[in-house]
Amino acid sequence: MAKIDTDVLLIAGHYQATEQIDAFLKKQGYTIAWVETASEVQMACEKSSFKVVLCSLNLRQGYGLDVLRYLIEFYPSLPVVMMAQSAILQDVLNALRSGACDFFIQPQYDLPSLFRSIQKNIRKYRALLDNDAYRKALEENNLQLQLSLKELENDQKAGRHVQQRLFPVSGQELNGCHFSHQLIPSLYLSGDFIDYIALTPEVTFFYLADISGHGASSAFVTVLLKNLSGRFVKSYRRKADSDILSPVVMLQRINQELLETPLGKHLTIVLGVIDQRQNTLCYSVGGHYPLPIFTDESGSRFLSGGGMPVGLFPEPHFEEHVLPLRDIGKWSLTVFSDGILEVMEGRLQDKEQRLLELVQSCDHVPERIVNELDLTALELPDDIALLSVRKI
Amino acid sequence: MAKIDTDVLLIAGHYQATEQIDAFLKKQGYTIAWVETASEVQMACEKSSFKVVLCSLNLRQGYGLDVLRYLIEFYPSLPVVMMAQSAILQDVLNALRSGACDFFIQPQYDLPSLFRSIQKNIRKYRALLDNDAYRKALEENNLQLQLSLKELENDQKAGRHVQQRLFPVSGQELNGCHFSHQLIPSLYLSGDFIDYIALTPEVTFFYLADISGHGASSAFVTVLLKNLSGRFVKSYRRKADSDILSPVVMLQRINQELLETPLGKHLTIVLGVIDQRQNTLCYSVGGHYPLPIFTDESGSRFLSGGGMPVGLFPEPHFEEHVLPLRDIGKWSLTVFSDGILEVMEGRLQDKEQRLLELVQSCDHVPERIVNELDLTALELPDDIALLSVRKI
Repeated sequence: MAKIDTDVLLIAGHYQATEQIDAFLKKQGYTIAWVETASEVQMACEKSSFKVVLCSLNLRQGYGLDVLRYLIEFYPSLPVVMMAQSAILQDVLNALRSGACDFFIQPQYDLPSLFRSIQKNIRKYRALLDNDAYRKALEENNLQLQLSLKELENDQKAGRHVQQRLFPVSGQELNGCHFSHQLIPSLYLSGDFIDYIALTPEVTFFYLADISGHGASSAFVTVLLKNLSGRFVKSYRRKADSDILSPVVMLQRINQELLETPLGKHLTIVLGVIDQRQNTLCYSVGGHYPLPIFTDESGSRFLSGGGMPVGLFPEPHFEEHVLPLRDIGKWSLTVFSDGILEVMEGRLQDKEQRLLELVQSCDHVPERIVNELDLTALELPDDIALLSVRKI
Repeated sequence: MAKIDTDVLLIAGHYQATEQIDAFLKKQGYTIAWVETASEVQMACEKSSFKVVLCSLNLRQGYGLDVLRYLIEFYPSLPVVMMAQSAILQDVLNALRSGACDFFIQPQYDLPSLFRSIQKNIRKYRALLDNDAYRKALEENNLQLQLSLKELENDQKAGRHVQQRLFPVSGQELNGCHFSHQLIPSLYLSGDFIDYIALTPEVTFFYLADISGHGASSAFVTVLLKNLSGRFVKSYRRKADSDILSPVVMLQRINQELLETPLGKHLTIVLGVIDQRQNTLCYSVGGHYPLPIFTDESGSRFLSGGGMPVGLFPEPHFEEHVLPLRDIGKWSLTVFSDGILEVMEGRLQDKEQRLLELVQSCDHVPERIVNELDLTALELPDDIALLSVRKI
């Protein structure tokens, strides 16, 4: 049963002084429960909740100090003000030591002072209750937030787990080249995508795409992209067409597909084909930045690029570049998504220079680059992807 | 500068009694800062943080009550125990009224009692500080949780926004039928998917699919499904093939595509074609439950089904059912995803009966069914999708 809310519990005999207190407090707007004997206190406390207790040291039945000790034991935060018609020093000290928060002698002569004490103690008690209630609300809120967060995190983790299946196994040897990659999504789901696949024992196809935005909405497009390139691989293998051998044709097909899909997303991409028969690297850049970094015996440089983002324009312009590899011994190629630039400081030109030095000092090994920049420890504003192709 | 942590601030002249207190407390293991005059108190409090103050009423310089009032004003939670070599009742009452938490006369004779008081007050003060620290930690934790949750929610909302684009506009008239749907995801992203499209002015294609699981990972497959069916629509329109006219062929193609995609997901589906020339509803059920509900003048019934889930088996079995519509005037068809069964109570048989009554009483209108079951107010364990086709 809910307790009745009462301001003051007055425990005192029916004297003129007590009546004055009762009348005075009522006049101040307080609700009062008045009991005369110690034996009535327990029931009063079970029936009502009080904000302050005003207890006489001298009761007709029972002892005020016993009542005080009972209250302190069972309602430790409830303030108890003691009072007496007359008292000796030791009475006051005893009351104090037993937990009284104030003591009044002959209060009828100083009702305003008693009133102030009651006000102050009620205020303190309320603050205590408020504080308790606030803490409880915080705790509950916290628990609720943790549950909601856990639910969303689990959903994202499940999504991430499924998305991981779309990526190739990093560290593969395909037709004389070592392919590896690193992917650090800013949240759980990645809007960057990478794939590499040996079409024949002599031709290898690869790409790195960076879908506009990041997170769940961009991750949708990675699924499409994987599906699309998979279809082209399939139709090439069953000799239906050889679209996949031409990076420009591939960009046009992806462009068309994205425009037809109502997702409203576009992407930038570097897409290439390494042909061992002709000893060439044929690639196209669809609005991608930074440009691919190529390293041979003469050092590292950005390859030339050009071309529009993919999925924005009905008639986009793309370029196909052919890099002859015949006279080059060892070479390496590294492609970054533009998230890498957001974790570097300085002017764009400095960042580009830094990237060139970085891939060279890390020998185009994605893991080393990630460690060098301490990427996994950072809060990333965008996904970061690195694709590396190294001639074995 | 960090304050030195000291247990007791002792403010008293150098009497034998004070020395006894100092020695006694030190023996109990307390650290003590001892100042003799009121003027030293401020600096002591700036230098150290105390857990309790022991202040003499009678100081050589300054008044103990003034020190008490200063401490209560600037360090309101710090407990102050007053003491005096001798005192009158009014001194004690004044100290009490000014905020002292205890008072001792000639403490040298009752050091254990003073010690208990100090212990008790230190304990209370510590609890107060701990409570404050705990509340602050809760508040900070709360804020952090809210930020993390907001980030994930925003990501999911963005994903949801993009996913919404894949769905047809609900409430379309296509070739003499009214198509509408409702979709209530259990989180943000849906693993249920619906589409309907007029292939020609006489042939309409539709499906409702329920992808295994729910949330982000399942939502990936809705993108694939939309893309796949879009491709079949396209190839039908450019007369490359008419696979889309056969529900069984479509299920086989979707099955194959899912098996080839490394997402590791399967789905159940009801897929149909309404042909006005032949006046037929041709449909297939891929492991979907509950079965589609068909209503004509003779009442509502579940259509016959059969067929395996899609994307699990390399050689699945699907059936094609043809329902002649020639002799039927008005008819309606409603398909639910199985999430609907999870919010209904009772045995499966009862739920099926309830569904039949529900679609009839709600006249196959998805909005009414959603309202009738109060679905938007529920915490859904799985996505719920409803597709309705009504002959106009």
